[in-house]
Amino acid sequence: MPGIAYLGPEGTFTEAALRAIEADGLIPVNGAAPGRPAPVAPITKDSTDAALAAVRSGEADFACVPIENSIEGSVLPTLDSLAEGTPLQIYAELTLDVSFTIATRPQLDRTQVRTVAAFPVAAAQVKRWLAEHLPESQLVPANSNAAAAQDVAAGRADAAVTTALAAARYRLDELAAGVVDEANARTRFVLIGPPGPPPARTGADRTSVVLRLHNVPGALVSAMTELSIRDIDLTRIESRPTRTEMGTYVFFLDFVGHIDDEPVAEALRALHRRCADLRYLGSWPTGALAGAAPPAFDEASAWLRRLRDGTP
Amino acid sequence: MPGIAYLGPEGTFTEAALRAIEADGLIPVNGAAPGRPAPVAPITKDSTDAALAAVRSGEADFACVPIENSIEGSVLPTLDSLAEGTPLQIYAELTLDVSFTIATRPQLDRTQVRTVAAFPVAAAQVKRWLAEHLPESQLVPANSNAAAAQDVAAGRADAAVTTALAAARYRLDELAAGVVDEANARTRFVLIGPPGPPPARTGADRTSVVLRLHNVPGALVSAMTELSIRDIDLTRIESRPTRTEMGTYVFFLDFVGHIDDEPVAEALRALHRRCADLRYLGSWPTGALAGAAPPAFDEASAWLRRLRDGTP
Amino acid sequence: MPGIAYLGPEGTFTEAALRAIEADGLIPVNGAAPGRPAPVAPITKDSTDAALAAVRSGEADFACVPIENSIEGSVLPTLDSLAEGTPLQIYAELTLDVSFTIATRPQLDRTQVRTVAAFPVAAAQVKRWLAEHLPESQLVPANSNAAAAQDVAAGRADAAVTTALAAARYRLDELAAGVVDEANARTRFVLIGPPGPPPARTGADRTSVVLRLHNVPGALVSAMTELSIRDIDLTRIESRPTRTEMGTYVFFLDFVGHIDDEPVAEALRALHRRCADLRYLGSWPTGALAGAAPPAFDEASAWLRRLRDGTP
Amino acid sequence: MPGIAYLGPEGTFTEAALRAIEADGLIPVNGAAPGRPAPVAPITKDSTDAALAAVRSGEADFACVPIENSIEGSVLPTLDSLAEGTPLQIYAELTLDVSFTIATRPQLDRTQVRTVAAFPVAAAQVKRWLAEHLPESQLVPANSNAAAAQDVAAGRADAAVTTALAAARYRLDELAAGVVDEANARTRFVLIGPPGPPPARTGADRTSVVLRLHNVPGALVSAMTELSIRDIDLTRIESRPTRTEMGTYVFFLDFVGHIDDEPVAEALRALHRRCADLRYLGSWPTGALAGAAPPAFDEASAWLRRLRDGTP
Repeated sequence: MPGIAYLGPEGTFTEAALRAIEADGLIPVNGAAPGRPAPVAPITKDSTDAALAAVRSGEADFACVPIENSIEGSVLPTLDSLAEGTPLQIYAELTLDVSFTIATRPQLDRTQVRTVAAFPVAAAQVKRWLAEHLPESQLVPANSNAAAAQDVAAGRADAAVTTALAAARYRLDELAAGVVDEANARTRFVLIGPPGPPPARTGADRTSVVLRLHNVPGALVSAMTELSIRDIDLTRIESRPTRTEMGTYVFFLDFVGHIDDEPVAEALRALHRRCADLRYLGSWPTGALAGAAPPAFDEASAWLRRLRDGTP
Repeated sequence: MPGIAYLGPEGTFTEAALRAIEADGLIPVNGAAPGRPAPVAPITKDSTDAALAAVRSGEADFACVPIENSIEGSVLPTLDSLAEGTPLQIYAELTLDVSFTIATRPQLDRTQVRTVAAFPVAAAQVKRWLAEHLPESQLVPANSNAAAAQDVAAGRADAAVTTALAAARYRLDELAAGVVDEANARTRFVLIGPPGPPPARTGADRTSVVLRLHNVPGALVSAMTELSIRDIDLTRIESRPTRTEMGTYVFFLDFVGHIDDEPVAEALRALHRRCADLRYLGSWPTGALAGAAPPAFDEASAWLRRLRDGTP
Repeated sequence: MPGIAYLGPEGTFTEAALRAIEADGLIPVNGAAPGRPAPVAPITKDSTDAALAAVRSGEADFACVPIENSIEGSVLPTLDSLAEGTPLQIYAELTLDVSFTIATRPQLDRTQVRTVAAFPVAAAQVKRWLAEHLPESQLVPANSNAAAAQDVAAGRADAAVTTALAAARYRLDELAAGVVDEANARTRFVLIGPPGPPPARTGADRTSVVLRLHNVPGALVSAMTELSIRDIDLTRIESRPTRTEMGTYVFFLDFVGHIDDEPVAEALRALHRRCADLRYLGSWPTGALAGAAPPAFDEASAWLRRLRDGTP
Repeated sequence: MPGIAYLGPEGTFTEAALRAIEADGLIPVNGAAPGRPAPVAPITKDSTDAALAAVRSGEADFACVPIENSIEGSVLPTLDSLAEGTPLQIYAELTLDVSFTIATRPQLDRTQVRTVAAFPVAAAQVKRWLAEHLPESQLVPANSNAAAAQDVAAGRADAAVTTALAAARYRLDELAAGVVDEANARTRFVLIGPPGPPPARTGADRTSVVLRLHNVPGALVSAMTELSIRDIDLTRIESRPTRTEMGTYVFFLDFVGHIDDEPVAEALRALHRRCADLRYLGSWPTGALAGAAPPAFDEASAWLRRLRDGTP
């Protein structure tokens, strides 16, 4: 039974994402398949970094971590950890709508709420709601969304900005559900393991890489042209400083397609030749119908074979 | 006397940067020139957002804020504030080597230090030093690097991770100077005001824009080609989510040159036509000899004039 | 009264083109304007080369020569002459449908035709017609389409492949008119003079250049990108050997727009910088509504001016 | 014994090229190999078109025809024939230095030469020599360089501009050898047959295609980018009118590499997808060390395989 590290304690959004990935049969272990999920052993960690370190050390087989949020952007510790050190690979992804449950100690009336425990990232996303509905209350920082519920259960706060999962687990009363200031707040989580064969091509896949460019003018535009010339749809580009010198960056690129799609294979090979370093972060199914190789590509391959055989 | 908002209290790195910008004569007010600094009235604010809001409301003429750090990357609140709302413009920049002073209450022996006040960003940058030199101490969060010194002066902590400026101002003892875990830690600060005529071209300038692209394949590579085809050196590219839908971004581009350099003017005009939205963030001197228009460009302009006159 | 050299004798297609250019008021002399043609003094020459040499020597003010045929492609002597030696410039163009008149000695019956005088280029274009209608006749080479009519008038041949103009001038009988094997045969003629101010921009103009590229990979694609990135429509590209080494070429490019259109001016300046040599062959009206600068370009220029003034 | 059509009669440059191709073992028949030439049966034709028609009809196995001249440029009938009708394929090439032998009737003194027989193309290339050395003589057109020698042997002219081969065959006296006005005059000949497996990759190969582009802006630059992005060296580009409408062209592209080189295979596949029509004209050895796939390409392919296997 594979061990999977995640940001705990139980009840975080990350655990919810992990449960959904498990239920979808996306964990690449024997017996896992859509509809036939394999059981996993969750291992709680107190940070994203610690979860990834557990994979690198072999303590866990996989880690489930957030990688991108529609409001805050990339989750930088996840990106930075993927770009450096022992290589890791992404095997699955899952996007959750993010909204919070405001939970109180049982039988506590709203007017009695003086203190609200909240993970700071969550506090920022429900600021307007709190100002409107609990204007007199004071914020108390918690270590995670689940820990906020724990804090209420332990009597350290009157209310918590938490998840539905945690509110239920700690038997709190639900004051409000689905709370979030900005609509469309979503977080994308990924399942990360050591390098291995990518999940089979589904026709709706994503591929991710990290580029380190040679320090010559036009290097980035040339690299991106390797994708655009092949009609590969770039879905994300993110730059991060190299931490060695200001003005030098690595680039994270996500694009539609699988390493077994011909255009993607060509583009990876070209980027490998062109870049100072290319780190492959994996190809995995996205579940959306967005990535089939254009049919003309297979026709073009057949045409090429006929030319080589002399039978056009 | 222009009022300039910055992250206070007195003694922060931001104040140090502001003082240097003032001393260099980079504040675009009557009488300012290299060697002839104009006096300014600093206005302390408790966040970068608040400093920029003071410019937008007219309370301050300018704001001095950090925009990029060689270790942590872009200062996201600064980027996000520049990209949205009332337009702002950058007029000057200054890069500071970042290292910290560890200061204690007067006459306190190192072995007596139990608590260390630190701004969390600073704490992260001196973690190894503290583990080695003050292994028994406990961290107490402060609101800024200067506030950490204030905390010591007020008796709320034994030592502070602070700046040399603040240590002196609050008459603390210096336990160590130039402390930082990673070498080459530097922060770039910018002077931001309302839109206005850019500072005159110096031949060593930087221009910055924010792009919102049309949602068509290849839009980013086409936009970047507008720079590369004109041999304009891109010094930074940063993507940020639009906050409306996951997978949609705005792009921050910095490049070498001034709006009065012909290639830059051409590129701006082309990007304005090509992009869904182009927000100009300014052209300003960098002080480094990195941005003269290639001489051939002037020659080419003269050649074009002769053709138009029919006297080639 | 300007002297204009052309391939004679009287009655050639080139003379017909010259008369049409004159009638359209396209000759850049005092008083010429659409509807107010200026009179010219035609000077017959026995080759395209000789006509251009007359301009270079000052004997003629302009030359009218064919430059492109829809069946045969570019008229190579015209291209080669434009690319080398004293610079020349194009001021006007005119496209004629090409078809031939088959003319005989007066009162001669079709069955009596034994010999047919024809300029070889013309003979090639009426080969099928002759095979069908005059299968027994033998071809006799003539020096031009008009000279073929002269040959018949002088009794050197029974029939001529000639122009309507020449058939009338030499008082021949018309056996057939509008004869040509392939439909859509058209020839484009240009009016060439010494370098001078281009005709005023009309919004429907063409610009032509000759490029000599540096011998580096990708030089041609980079040069063409200078046009495509500016949405300039390339209407013709032709390569010609440099005559010095096999595998080295000059390129003739025609594109939509005028040197006074901003995108064209930018592109010319960029090509001047990028290429080993750029020879400008002129900007002139085409009479078709195909070349207005996109309106967004003017808007972009105004936007740029506002940025420079600090009044966005 | 394969039959090979060429522009005759015996003694033309084309025959000389065919003999050299045969001697080099470049004819793709059983037993041919460098140093082990297979015998062939030459079939004379009176034009390049007729030689290619003989291949299309099955009368000949191959045709040897000129394709490019360093002074005159492409041999247009050869290009036009390759671009249309039944597909043909190139299997070998050979470049000859072109210079002429001036030959006279035996015992004729130079001062007695009144008439000079010459193929018009050849006459153009020795114009200056004739003006200097035989200023009083008059030109008499011949059907080929070899036919010019025949004309002298038959008493129809006093001297011939011909080849060394023909002069010897018709037992003429050699007045001058190596005659040509411009230095570096060379002609490239190709061996053309029906479609079939290309000759094996040698590492010094050339590939040739004909493109018909979709009528969209930037189509040509996009097509050429498919080569440049893969570092494929374009050695020739030639445009020819489509003969249907003025301003529409097909493009002939020659580039370094073989259909079995990965970058070339990728580029062919991409062009096949991108273009309205792509006609493959073959891959064949050039004999010069100019075409090895960059070593990094094989390394990149191995790297890709390891990623797919999950063993990076």
